[in-house]
Amino acid sequence: MAGYHLEAIEAAPLKDDVDIVIPTIRSLDFLEQWRPFLRHYHLIIVQDGDPSINIRVPDGYDYELYNRNDINRILGPRASCISYKDGGCRCFGFMVSKKKYIYTIDDDCFVAKDPSGKEINVIAQHIKNLETPSTPHYFNTLYDPFRDGTDFVRGYPFSLREGVQTAISHGLWLNIPDYDAPTQLVKPRERNTRYVDAVMTIPKGVLYPMCGMNLAFNRELIGPAMYFGLMGEGQPISRYDDMWAGWAAKVVCDHLGFGVKTGLPYLWHSKASNPFVNLKKEHKGLHWQEDMVPFFQNLRLSKESDTATKCYMELSKMTKENLTKVDPYFENLADAMVTWIEAWEELNPPVKNEACDEELNPPVKKGSVKDVKAK
Amino acid sequence: MAGYHLEAIEAAPLKDDVDIVIPTIRSLDFLEQWRPFLRHYHLIIVQDGDPSINIRVPDGYDYELYNRNDINRILGPRASCISYKDGGCRCFGFMVSKKKYIYTIDDDCFVAKDPSGKEINVIAQHIKNLETPSTPHYFNTLYDPFRDGTDFVRGYPFSLREGVQTAISHGLWLNIPDYDAPTQLVKPRERNTRYVDAVMTIPKGVLYPMCGMNLAFNRELIGPAMYFGLMGEGQPISRYDDMWAGWAAKVVCDHLGFGVKTGLPYLWHSKASNPFVNLKKEHKGLHWQEDMVPFFQNLRLSKESDTATKCYMELSKMTKENLTKVDPYFENLADAMVTWIEAWEELNPPVKNEACDEELNPPVKKGSVKDVKAK
Repeated sequence: MAGYHLEAIEAAPLKDDVDIVIPTIRSLDFLEQWRPFLRHYHLIIVQDGDPSINIRVPDGYDYELYNRNDINRILGPRASCISYKDGGCRCFGFMVSKKKYIYTIDDDCFVAKDPSGKEINVIAQHIKNLETPSTPHYFNTLYDPFRDGTDFVRGYPFSLREGVQTAISHGLWLNIPDYDAPTQLVKPRERNTRYVDAVMTIPKGVLYPMCGMNLAFNRELIGPAMYFGLMGEGQPISRYDDMWAGWAAKVVCDHLGFGVKTGLPYLWHSKASNPFVNLKKEHKGLHWQEDMVPFFQNLRLSKESDTATKCYMELSKMTKENLTKVDPYFENLADAMVTWIEAWEELNPPVKNEACDEELNPPVKKGSVKDVKAK
Repeated sequence: MAGYHLEAIEAAPLKDDVDIVIPTIRSLDFLEQWRPFLRHYHLIIVQDGDPSINIRVPDGYDYELYNRNDINRILGPRASCISYKDGGCRCFGFMVSKKKYIYTIDDDCFVAKDPSGKEINVIAQHIKNLETPSTPHYFNTLYDPFRDGTDFVRGYPFSLREGVQTAISHGLWLNIPDYDAPTQLVKPRERNTRYVDAVMTIPKGVLYPMCGMNLAFNRELIGPAMYFGLMGEGQPISRYDDMWAGWAAKVVCDHLGFGVKTGLPYLWHSKASNPFVNLKKEHKGLHWQEDMVPFFQNLRLSKESDTATKCYMELSKMTKENLTKVDPYFENLADAMVTWIEAWEELNPPVKNEACDEELNPPVKKGSVKDVKAK
């Protein structure tokens, strides 16, 4: 038994530094299969939809659960920035966590196997990704140089080999690929069967579509930029919650000098959502992304924005200035971004460090927040 | 027999559009193993070193062979731009070819097997890479969207899904990884055993270390920028021939809107070169790459440079202006770049098209070549 216990602990690295955030509208039976890998971690469950529904959580898991009533109670009027009836509500869990790392997973995802047939420990791989540096300034053709058995290849400048701190680890999916509704409709039977045994840094200045299904990040570095936007009920758009967060967090990482990785680990995505429902949810996004992507590609954050919080406030202002012409929705989104930061700061007040407070945790001045809102 | 013949032809796609360029100082017995995949292609062999040595080519291959005397005879005084006693001499083969595609391979490389045990057809994969578009403007998390069984994921703007024409396909190596001398010394036993089943576009604006061991490119699009520099005997530097070509060709591709892919196919790199010899050859390069890489990262080619030839002439000028302060060698290199383009144009005179000559093949004026040289 002692042996078993030790083995379990080994399979649960940094268990006191990671919260697992799960948005759901149903019972969490999917956690049964995850038990060998997730049961030592603390769960933050964000219940979406009707708060009166009872969410069943498998025995043995340590968790806290928030439904819409809880969110409204905790955030008050600022609860308006948390999406309702959309997976984007998960970002409430990022906000209430006090851990260094967040791992977030969808409840239709299961343990995948690597080509040798071994079950994949998603968290162990994400933590490895997050705890080793990224290399955003130059591409290494043998992929992650920090992996055992690999290194920087000939022609890789030595000055770049230390890399930078990793803020985001984006994992992938076997079985059902993360396609948009038009692609789902055109290729209803396409399955992802290919296990690409690689982790790589997404280079600085390059955007990617971040999927929230299998995602880990360093909350201390980038948490305030991991806002999943205003989606779902009452909004003209859904299914772009993770995309918005991904674009925003990537430009903030690039600006602050943090790295973003994608690739391993894979999980098993069990069920394709209904493409016709998805088409309705995402049709505005399919159109707007033609403006959103160039917006994020071309923006330049100012030198003064030297924390994720300040970057995000500046991004809110830029969103309002540049995207409101695409649709009035973006004005609301920009306001919600400010509300999100206000709520984040309320729940995560900057740590007081008398010696060098300003440098370690430069507070966003309330005044500047209001200035941006008033614009 | 007819069946065998058909199979062989199928295994040799576009055989009339590809030349295989091999630099060598020894007999080409390695081609015996490549017979199933390469024997239908035409070889251009560039013999390095002593021209009196007789290079043995396995029976059944169709080839032309150039030694140093041939290069001197064909290029006259311009032969000075072709490296001697360095693999960089291979670029002479690019120049004398008249084909659309070049595949270049080192003579210590053999057929590798994929994880299923099947021998890899390197050329078929390179041609697939070159004949399908690249996606340099946005990262697709499921890698090459043009591969069977894969597509663009959710959040990929539709306006970017056509991609751009691919100019370069950079293949990888199992067994001996392409490490520099210091890494070879530190990790003498490291072998690359990992088969990463992916092809990906290296995004626009991102540099990578291009290795010449297993490389294919579209000569029509990017040939003039595939100059392997001045290396080897009489030069202060070796083993940076392919790096120089890779950096230059990448910035030219980025500027002209062409794509660069890396990943599959793998070949089997059999023998690590001597790390102490390599250290001597590359020690200046290890130092200079700290300046060369930022030079290529930061330069901006002008709008007027709208062909690979014009881009390369501009690059020569920039090299002289920006890198000569690093070492006087770069002044010679910059001059050799001009000589290379002159030689290229002599052997590959712009095709006359009476209807729209200027647009299809705008010639570099002799005057402007001389202006740059005189600077």
